[in-house]
Amino acid sequence: MVRATLIQIDNYGPWTVTPEPRRETDLQSLQARLYADLCAAFGEHGSLVFFSRFDNLVAFTEGVSPEHHADVQRSIRNRYPVTVSMGIADAPTPKDAVGRASALLQDEGSAQDPDRVERLASDTGDGTALQVAHFDIENATERYTDEIDAYGCQLLVERAGLALMEEMWDREAATFFVGGDNYVAVSPLLGQKEYAEVIEMVEERTNVELKVGVGEGETPSDAGMQAKHCLERSRNGGGRVEFY
Amino acid sequence: MVRATLIQIDNYGPWTVTPEPRRETDLQSLQARLYADLCAAFGEHGSLVFFSRFDNLVAFTEGVSPEHHADVQRSIRNRYPVTVSMGIADAPTPKDAVGRASALLQDEGSAQDPDRVERLASDTGDGTALQVAHFDIENATERYTDEIDAYGCQLLVERAGLALMEEMWDREAATFFVGGDNYVAVSPLLGQKEYAEVIEMVEERTNVELKVGVGEGETPSDAGMQAKHCLERSRNGGGRVEFY
Amino acid sequence: MVRATLIQIDNYGPWTVTPEPRRETDLQSLQARLYADLCAAFGEHGSLVFFSRFDNLVAFTEGVSPEHHADVQRSIRNRYPVTVSMGIADAPTPKDAVGRASALLQDEGSAQDPDRVERLASDTGDGTALQVAHFDIENATERYTDEIDAYGCQLLVERAGLALMEEMWDREAATFFVGGDNYVAVSPLLGQKEYAEVIEMVEERTNVELKVGVGEGETPSDAGMQAKHCLERSRNGGGRVEFY
Amino acid sequence: MVRATLIQIDNYGPWTVTPEPRRETDLQSLQARLYADLCAAFGEHGSLVFFSRFDNLVAFTEGVSPEHHADVQRSIRNRYPVTVSMGIADAPTPKDAVGRASALLQDEGSAQDPDRVERLASDTGDGTALQVAHFDIENATERYTDEIDAYGCQLLVERAGLALMEEMWDREAATFFVGGDNYVAVSPLLGQKEYAEVIEMVEERTNVELKVGVGEGETPSDAGMQAKHCLERSRNGGGRVEFY
Repeated sequence: MVRATLIQIDNYGPWTVTPEPRRETDLQSLQARLYADLCAAFGEHGSLVFFSRFDNLVAFTEGVSPEHHADVQRSIRNRYPVTVSMGIADAPTPKDAVGRASALLQDEGSAQDPDRVERLASDTGDGTALQVAHFDIENATERYTDEIDAYGCQLLVERAGLALMEEMWDREAATFFVGGDNYVAVSPLLGQKEYAEVIEMVEERTNVELKVGVGEGETPSDAGMQAKHCLERSRNGGGRVEFY
Repeated sequence: MVRATLIQIDNYGPWTVTPEPRRETDLQSLQARLYADLCAAFGEHGSLVFFSRFDNLVAFTEGVSPEHHADVQRSIRNRYPVTVSMGIADAPTPKDAVGRASALLQDEGSAQDPDRVERLASDTGDGTALQVAHFDIENATERYTDEIDAYGCQLLVERAGLALMEEMWDREAATFFVGGDNYVAVSPLLGQKEYAEVIEMVEERTNVELKVGVGEGETPSDAGMQAKHCLERSRNGGGRVEFY
Repeated sequence: MVRATLIQIDNYGPWTVTPEPRRETDLQSLQARLYADLCAAFGEHGSLVFFSRFDNLVAFTEGVSPEHHADVQRSIRNRYPVTVSMGIADAPTPKDAVGRASALLQDEGSAQDPDRVERLASDTGDGTALQVAHFDIENATERYTDEIDAYGCQLLVERAGLALMEEMWDREAATFFVGGDNYVAVSPLLGQKEYAEVIEMVEERTNVELKVGVGEGETPSDAGMQAKHCLERSRNGGGRVEFY
Repeated sequence: MVRATLIQIDNYGPWTVTPEPRRETDLQSLQARLYADLCAAFGEHGSLVFFSRFDNLVAFTEGVSPEHHADVQRSIRNRYPVTVSMGIADAPTPKDAVGRASALLQDEGSAQDPDRVERLASDTGDGTALQVAHFDIENATERYTDEIDAYGCQLLVERAGLALMEEMWDREAATFFVGGDNYVAVSPLLGQKEYAEVIEMVEERTNVELKVGVGEGETPSDAGMQAKHCLERSRNGGGRVEFY
């Protein structure tokens, strides 16, 4: 089982334009701080948080209780001009868990319902081991960052990333951009052959070569740290798919 | 003329894995804070900052002097475990300006050259008026956020966004995700017809309907605020392309 | 038993002037962020953190393991240009606990020894119930904030605060300013009569009238929240010393 | 003339206990972030900001227009759950300037008047040169930090600081703690002899030896940086009072 949490800013869209549109740099700064704070708060408990769309963030929260989620809600209410609602669900795959967490929250009311404030909807059981995969682009600095313009690089990373996200989602894994040329996937227990296929498909679709380190653990954070060590092995002469 | 600044964390990749891989939530938190601080620092001067790839950020910095850029470098050095280099360039279009800013910084050395620390490379002339366009998705909350799962929403927003970024880049504009279903483009002086075409192309490629507000001003921030007001007009019964 | 943690920035003084003095606003911003982050990280576990001198912070960390302290050290190392060392000690009173935590850290080397980096020295046993007292000034807004100048107010609050800190320290309690006209004390199990004496002494020495709410609990945070509820009772017509 | 700004959180006391007392670590974190952000925002313009009582902050804002103050108000409203009001005044001495800024804001209504929201009251003329003095304690690490317990150190620093603040206020200067054993004073144009007297008085009253560097400049930040360089000279064999 995998535990996913959907964190949604309550009635955010209307707030950003009431009484008139708020300055974009303020909103960007607000969203980035909120994301950083959620990384820190859930990171304390071995979870991983992804910015997704910034007003809808996705976390993998193995072993974090609904009570602790409520603590995070309280702390945000006390420090931000907005509140958040959360849906928490366990399911056999990351795809299912995100789907259930989304459905639980949608059942509480619309994201833009002014009466849906600080809801916490959960449906949780027992957790088990998770797989986390950390991807990056083969020689990104040499091939791209130092060679082509910054926006061209960004487009290339996004094209490869979108292909990767789609391929992994088809295999029940949720994949997120974490900066630079790095993507992190929370996966069901996939094998080496499946990762090799995904990398091949991305190269076929976008002409970008990826490599990946894969780890397993009881918290997403432990699994993620193993994945990073494997990726280092790949960087230092290992293969394009390295398992723990 | 449009002024663009490329902000690059110095030798960041190697730092993230020295002496061994650093915890992902710490890195995410670091990057998000840096982005929030750059939004605030440049936002003070009417600029717009975009996270791009988080380790390479793109800003539009009309009227912000190289000296002020150096102040921002100093402040980061004093508060973060990393330093940043910057390339600043003026050019007739946003695409050219980003290209030149990138080339200036690449001339200073590789992004992963340990000796390239806190460089500030600039080539600036006089600024003139800018156009900023603010896009979002027609009825995103009703159609998507409240209906499908959170990750499916994210994929849909990213697909539409990638198509939008590519179409706009072909028209010399640089377009960035700013959260939710919002994309902001810094553009050369495009007409209403061109925006209508872009929206049509995105719908054809991805089946997602966008709308857009377009503003002009002496700073990106002023132009961006006008664009947001136009987008409000579009939300309240206006057309799918609204100019200031 | 009370658990106290002394958090000390490693070799901070020399760093602030190397290679030349760093800008004060940057240093203030760095220190304030670090304090905010430590409040959040330890606050997650029911602890209380006080800024003390900003480069030496004091926390009360009932039930927080040395391993968790090490996690906080790692997170700071990854996000700040400085590192911290910590001493953790249990003792019968807050005064003793702070004294032992200080001695443990001093045994590791000088605060300005460049080789003393990220030390974690602990001597911990079993915890028990704690008392927390929350003081503020009787009618501070009406009598002072709205009547005299801001700096005069500050001086008055500091004079009363210093007298309070000295009186409480004599009774083995450590007392800290937390903003406004609020002081929080972590105390051994003092009685109502002792609090009344302290308040009387402060009034005699500085002519400022305090009131206080007192709580007890297994974590400093629980005890502190009870204290705040008691202080509310005092504000709403209760006595000048209100116990849970 | 010296320009001072009093920044006051609107109706903060009542907010912290509505609908019930809010968690102290959240409030501390909120206040520390706000202080850090104000340091950054005003620091961009060469100003100095001091936390004073955290809910009432004092800044010296030579050359910063009321319009820019309004920008800071807007940015806070957009990112925090509270708003701030400001009083801005020019006067011949820092003491007068703080006094006038306080009076201007008090005229707008009580700090706890729920209808006094985001006021900006200013009375400004032309600025001139300022003096800034940076004090610290002679050999604080060797004598105190490495020798006595952390709270004893804090009390000693606060006792010396309170004496210093009172002596300087009598000489029309406003003095603030900025962390460690450091105090910064914004002063009228005092001479070397007056600083020597102040240091002597503090030693007489508290038995703590201070030293000081003094700078002058058009912005508080420039004057402050000069003061820091002078203090370095004092640390490296200079006298206990060093002027630029």
